Amino acid sequence: MQASVVELIAAKRDGGTLLPDDIARLVTAFGSGEMADYQMAAFLMAVYFKGLDVAETTALTFAMLHSGSVLDLGHIPRFKVDKHSTGGVGDKVSICLAPLVAACGVAVPMVSGRGLGHTGGTLDKLEAIPGFRTDLPVDQFSRIVADVGVCMIGQTKDIAPADRRMYALRDVTATVESIPLIVASILSKKLAEGIDGLVLDVKVGRGAFMKTEPLARQLAQALVDTGTRAGKKVVAILTDMSAPLGIAVGNANETREALTVLHDRGPADVRECTLVLAEEMLLISGRVTERGEARELLLAALRSGEALRVMERMVAAQGGDSRVVGEPDRLVVAPSVKVLAETAGTVVEVDPLEIGLAAVALGAGRTRTDQAVDPAVGIMVLARPGTSVVRGDTLAEVQAHDAGVAANVVARVRSAIRIGHGAVPTPTLVRGRIEAHTGGLPP
Amino acid sequence: MQASVVELIAAKRDGGTLLPDDIARLVTAFGSGEMADYQMAAFLMAVYFKGLDVAETTALTFAMLHSGSVLDLGHIPRFKVDKHSTGGVGDKVSICLAPLVAACGVAVPMVSGRGLGHTGGTLDKLEAIPGFRTDLPVDQFSRIVADVGVCMIGQTKDIAPADRRMYALRDVTATVESIPLIVASILSKKLAEGIDGLVLDVKVGRGAFMKTEPLARQLAQALVDTGTRAGKKVVAILTDMSAPLGIAVGNANETREALTVLHDRGPADVRECTLVLAEEMLLISGRVTERGEARELLLAALRSGEALRVMERMVAAQGGDSRVVGEPDRLVVAPSVKVLAETAGTVVEVDPLEIGLAAVALGAGRTRTDQAVDPAVGIMVLARPGTSVVRGDTLAEVQAHDAGVAANVVARVRSAIRIGHGAVPTPTLVRGRIEAHTGGLPP
Repeated sequence: MQASVVELIAAKRDGGTLLPDDIARLVTAFGSGEMADYQMAAFLMAVYFKGLDVAETTALTFAMLHSGSVLDLGHIPRFKVDKHSTGGVGDKVSICLAPLVAACGVAVPMVSGRGLGHTGGTLDKLEAIPGFRTDLPVDQFSRIVADVGVCMIGQTKDIAPADRRMYALRDVTATVESIPLIVASILSKKLAEGIDGLVLDVKVGRGAFMKTEPLARQLAQALVDTGTRAGKKVVAILTDMSAPLGIAVGNANETREALTVLHDRGPADVRECTLVLAEEMLLISGRVTERGEARELLLAALRSGEALRVMERMVAAQGGDSRVVGEPDRLVVAPSVKVLAETAGTVVEVDPLEIGLAAVALGAGRTRTDQAVDPAVGIMVLARPGTSVVRGDTLAEVQAHDAGVAANVVARVRSAIRIGHGAVPTPTLVRGRIEAHTGGLPP
Repeated sequence: MQASVVELIAAKRDGGTLLPDDIARLVTAFGSGEMADYQMAAFLMAVYFKGLDVAETTALTFAMLHSGSVLDLGHIPRFKVDKHSTGGVGDKVSICLAPLVAACGVAVPMVSGRGLGHTGGTLDKLEAIPGFRTDLPVDQFSRIVADVGVCMIGQTKDIAPADRRMYALRDVTATVESIPLIVASILSKKLAEGIDGLVLDVKVGRGAFMKTEPLARQLAQALVDTGTRAGKKVVAILTDMSAPLGIAVGNANETREALTVLHDRGPADVRECTLVLAEEMLLISGRVTERGEARELLLAALRSGEALRVMERMVAAQGGDSRVVGEPDRLVVAPSVKVLAETAGTVVEVDPLEIGLAAVALGAGRTRTDQAVDPAVGIMVLARPGTSVVRGDTLAEVQAHDAGVAANVVARVRSAIRIGHGAVPTPTLVRGRIEAHTGGLPP
């Protein structure tokens, strides 16, 4: 006799290991209504305390994945790889990374999210491009990936519906902060894209979901092990989020900055983060076998303008004004107010969480999923940890339509940029690289 | 700013101690619908793992108590005391205990439950008396307690509705086995009766909810400490449930057996369990100051027939045929089939769980709350641990209407009565007595 839903909740509560079939059955029962929301909530809390091992997490990922439709990109005769970031402040990397990697001959079918809380979202940033559509039907998405090599859309309703319902439950039952649940949520959506490989950018620091390196490593390892067991090539890079990435924090301003990277310029940290992740994508795709070769290929695609041309074709294919790719200044940003240093010294901290929340206060982000964002507002953070400043130097610029709002945010940004004395170590951008344990368990 | 429901769930999840006001707010929010079932389920699972201290448990008890109406028996100028058993097999003690204690001058307002699973319920047993009503309105209940000194009814809809909803949730979310939740559930219902004191019979052993003495002691201590903090006089007795209590397991047959105790006869264990609990009720009521005095008073009430007369008056007041009190054989039981010993030896075990489940299979109990029970069926368990038997001796009698059902149950009862060799220690009926720690914390 198969175990009842209550018996399976009790088994997890008591620290037992559930069979893959049992986990699949719970997700199916949740989908059909046989398992009620309150039973799933109790199960999620039991998982919060007792965890899931790699086999259980993989089973949960597959069950959530198969609760909806899974894209089949088998007709595209290239290795298909995506990148997923766990979210940070100023993280516009996807926008330059995806066309750059596609320009090197690897297909990049990318399904992204929107901003929530202090972290921004790729969709919101892309939509700063006039006419750009992120809500394309899957057949069009698939055609653009085949033709251009890259397409960037939002999650459709039929991708992993069980994840959507479970995430909504977790959000209101204090069960978000569970590594296996985070892993299954991320991977079920990514696996629905029909990818062969995935590079994870696990952010670590005050502006990230994982504030400490041990926690970030734990999440990265769980993601890589589960993704590998699910039959994909997966690697994770730990990157710094102790300060915002790059200068721009907002939407139009971040898309602008990403475009400057495709113009073979851009802030050094955004450029390096993009190149490191792109290298991994080329390596796991088999396009190259050595890191040096990957770097050369990527730099050539930037220098030759090939990456920029792929971006132009993608923007055009998705209904956007492709002229902004060549002329990023076409992206409208609000008038800016300077944030000036009130003392001399060294910048010891640029608090990414506070900068992110200040951007939300401007209207560049949202606190509830049903809110709209204003693409034109944002913050340009010029000061970086270690920068020497004198009184009157410009630390940042606040881009806002309203002077009153700007004044408030100026004060907030100023207090987020802490000036002190003495030497400040520059944060290391790449904090680690995580591969599957023992090459991954057999699927 | 007061903490949100999600923040309070997270605080408990992280092992924090909640303020009494916060716990009250959760229960109120649950009642109003502001806190959803799935949030309560997550909270209950967090409590399962992290527990509640005595102050938190008391706050939860009060919040659940005040989710409904609380009886005011202040007009009855006597100490009002009830007994609650955590449930066992063959536990018909309430039926003889309540009138016996009332006959000694202490008021006993008793709200009882129905059987579920392997344990029976007082209401089902009492309803074997033709015409006996357990669904009286509270004003009639209160009047009968005033006039007769005792009344035994079922939980009304307006007693602790939050407990009813929370219990239903716990039942389907694997959160039943949590001591603070059990304590709050029991006490919120008992405190609604308007009592001054409460004696708890915490059963321990295979037929009980708590299978081991350490667990039973933990539950008893939590019940006594919380009840004391709630301002009541509370004491708990640990009693044995390693074998069924008495001979009869069923409904009509158990009521019969309880009536034989009131006739100053009855099986020794049922009689002794009744007297021990009754002594405690007289002691906490202040009716007597010494245990010996209590015992004398109780034995006198049995010998004089005063306890029996109180029972007669209660049955009549509750619409029942009071002739059954004097003539218990008027209670109809089904024809019986003997369970004979197939080998000689000593009875080493009478498994109360198996006997209880066999009684359910006969129709004497229920597995779902919406099932009806058959008052006339049951099992008479004659064999006791330590009894010497020869082949052909009657170990038990199965009372059933249907020969096919009876045959199945006979086999089941036979396998529940294990015959072996050598000396078997007789289980000690009273396993301990639990008073409040440090005399209870100030309320």
